[in-house]
Amino acid sequence: MNIEPISLKEKFKKFNDHWSPKIIGEMNDYHFKLAKVKGDFVWHHHQETDETFFVISGKLNIELKDTKIKLNEGEMVIIPKGVEHRPYSKDECLIMLIEPKNVKNTGNIKNELTVEKETWI
Amino acid sequence: MNIEPISLKEKFKKFNDHWSPKIIGEMNDYHFKLAKVKGDFVWHHHQETDETFFVISGKLNIELKDTKIKLNEGEMVIIPKGVEHRPYSKDECLIMLIEPKNVKNTGNIKNELTVEKETWI
Repeated sequence: MNIEPISLKEKFKKFNDHWSPKIIGEMNDYHFKLAKVKGDFVWHHHQETDETFFVISGKLNIELKDTKIKLNEGEMVIIPKGVEHRPYSKDECLIMLIEPKNVKNTGNIKNELTVEKETWI
Repeated sequence: MNIEPISLKEKFKKFNDHWSPKIIGEMNDYHFKLAKVKGDFVWHHHQETDETFFVISGKLNIELKDTKIKLNEGEMVIIPKGVEHRPYSKDECLIMLIEPKNVKNTGNIKNELTVEKETWI
């Protein structure tokens, strides 16, 4: 059995594209993913699951239908299933996502931002 | 619906006891927990689930039967279900745990370190 430490800093060096989550770990039927984000994402929701956003570096905004969440480094939020949300960030922000395997990044929406098959790094 | 940012820094100010995880968030049937640890924990395993350790501050060691994992700040490890492990830390270390609800901190062992009912902070 190969049980290895996962360094977020080292993993973030392995990619530079935005809004494209990379898988770094698996716990039961959940994935830990890293993403670099900048600019606007699309309004979407996940019908079947909650989704956790954890800010590793920078600032992330998540617009909801009736409010706006501002996350700084070291802060997280759990978006309940079914809740429409739109992440965006003026400057580049590094985040960790925690959610069940096979959750699509754009949820109920399919567009040019949709990642059909997320890859491990 | 009340969806709030969770600041790990603020949450860590709310307790000082060691080896006693506090719940800070819920995602589906999983909990995010914070713990302050120092000294030796007990050998144990979790028969039904993997368990994630994420180091927020300090250094955490996790002894396995055949090796030792050293985690620095910003590093995580996922201990597969059934794997015997023993966390320890010379100096105080702040960690986040991610695991299904109702997982006991000492797994298959019951002793003075066992927290029967973990509380929200």
